[in-house]
Amino acid sequence: MSLLIVGSIALDTIETPFGKVKETLGGSAVYSSIAASYFIKPCIVAVVGEDFPKSYLSLLKRHNIDITGVEVANGKTFRWSGHYLYDLNSAQTIETQLNVFKSFNPKIPQQYKNIKNIFLANIDPELQYHVYKQMLQPEIVACDTMNYWIENKKTQLKRTLKIVDILLINETEARQLAEESNIIKAAKCIHKMGPKTIVIKRGEYGAICSYKDNIFIVPSYPVENVFDPTGAGDSFAGGFMGYVTKVGKFNNKILRKAIILGTVMGSFCVEKFGVKKISSITYEDILQRYKEIKKITHFENL
Amino acid sequence: MSLLIVGSIALDTIETPFGKVKETLGGSAVYSSIAASYFIKPCIVAVVGEDFPKSYLSLLKRHNIDITGVEVANGKTFRWSGHYLYDLNSAQTIETQLNVFKSFNPKIPQQYKNIKNIFLANIDPELQYHVYKQMLQPEIVACDTMNYWIENKKTQLKRTLKIVDILLINETEARQLAEESNIIKAAKCIHKMGPKTIVIKRGEYGAICSYKDNIFIVPSYPVENVFDPTGAGDSFAGGFMGYVTKVGKFNNKILRKAIILGTVMGSFCVEKFGVKKISSITYEDILQRYKEIKKITHFENL
Repeated sequence: MSLLIVGSIALDTIETPFGKVKETLGGSAVYSSIAASYFIKPCIVAVVGEDFPKSYLSLLKRHNIDITGVEVANGKTFRWSGHYLYDLNSAQTIETQLNVFKSFNPKIPQQYKNIKNIFLANIDPELQYHVYKQMLQPEIVACDTMNYWIENKKTQLKRTLKIVDILLINETEARQLAEESNIIKAAKCIHKMGPKTIVIKRGEYGAICSYKDNIFIVPSYPVENVFDPTGAGDSFAGGFMGYVTKVGKFNNKILRKAIILGTVMGSFCVEKFGVKKISSITYEDILQRYKEIKKITHFENL
Repeated sequence: MSLLIVGSIALDTIETPFGKVKETLGGSAVYSSIAASYFIKPCIVAVVGEDFPKSYLSLLKRHNIDITGVEVANGKTFRWSGHYLYDLNSAQTIETQLNVFKSFNPKIPQQYKNIKNIFLANIDPELQYHVYKQMLQPEIVACDTMNYWIENKKTQLKRTLKIVDILLINETEARQLAEESNIIKAAKCIHKMGPKTIVIKRGEYGAICSYKDNIFIVPSYPVENVFDPTGAGDSFAGGFMGYVTKVGKFNNKILRKAIILGTVMGSFCVEKFGVKKISSITYEDILQRYKEIKKITHFENL
């Protein structure tokens, strides 16, 4: 089974209270595909510039990621720089250089068109829709989005949401999209826009999922040394969709396991700068942390 | 088994986006004792003024709460008024009239002095210590505190913490007390101050507990209609200590069940103004919600 991931590849410059890295490998397609690669073979569609380091492409290939769909365009790679303050909860963007990402128009390679599971990472909802239209037999379509699209492309976003099965979204953005501060009510409102499954990411507070008449709530894994939260949400999505794709079917039980695995991947992500940690763990590490989350959330019947 | 609760009795004026109530029954001793009363017979030590409505005392008595320790002092009852904005996460205090609470010096009635379990609700840490000293054979001492005491009476608070077994504290205040933003590290730091068990209340995000080498994390119960968050933390503490007292022993399993029951009581509390909801539920309602939390947090092994 494979998973198509469409998103960004970036060179990130990140500063946190614990250090700084310059032009390190980043972007939603990168974090999510590395996380997904522990479960299945991800195929990514993205764009880089001529300046993109070959070593970074090699890193992706080493992770069994199919990069046929990575276009090398004339110009410079997308760059983002941001910093985090002590609470590490939200990034302050210092600069965004779209570069080749500005005219990114994802073309799905012929050999990807039959892939059934798709993760449309956080890009323009028009492009997300455009990707969907190119697929021949999509079965599970997941997507992410952000405040910028909710504010500036709500109509287009709503069209995309109609064809989306699983929406992965930050809590603040879920509230913004639904125009409702109570998160349970917000989820109900978003269901009406299309997605049958809504996974609301709450950062250090974990995630809440609404699926049919089921609510599932999970805390984040308690990480003592959070170095860099960049990519945690994308790693969550990658682990989540990687597992869903691996299993090859979808129900309430599988959904819950996938959310825990998303949580696990997000927790590894923040422990080192960039992709350093999620690209150097083993499947055993993942299973171990899954068990730990089971332990820290367990309680008996009265 | 009985539980001694020392705290405030207040007349609260509360405004939320959903309505307003004037001089309604409130205060930490009230919320926590009503919540605890579903498990054991609480005995409260507190002070009211001559103006305190008899109907409110009757309400407490109807809940099987021993009010022998409620002193009626010359003057007016403690009054608090506050309002909540749409996110309902934190109260804005409009006015605090300490009145008889200003010179409150809790005297423990003779027949209470042998009580083994004590909940020192959020009052001056000097008074909390003073209560402790009057007890003959305290076994489990729990306390709450707040930013005001951390800022203004840290030395006295630290003396109190040395004799405390269980600290129940808000997340922001835990960070402030430990001077550490990572909540796991903050808990470790607070353990060194005395309490072997730390229950950190995270409002709508639930609670995290650190006990020996165990971390336990639980979400809040997803309440769709939050009317008034006043007293949720005290209701949590009451449910928690009520159950611990009922069981009569303390270990990791009991602690976890107690935290779920605290969560349940907090979730009922916010559903109506003041004590309206927590004073009108049944034990069956509590058991039902306990089961629901079990359901919304359950996931299987991989």
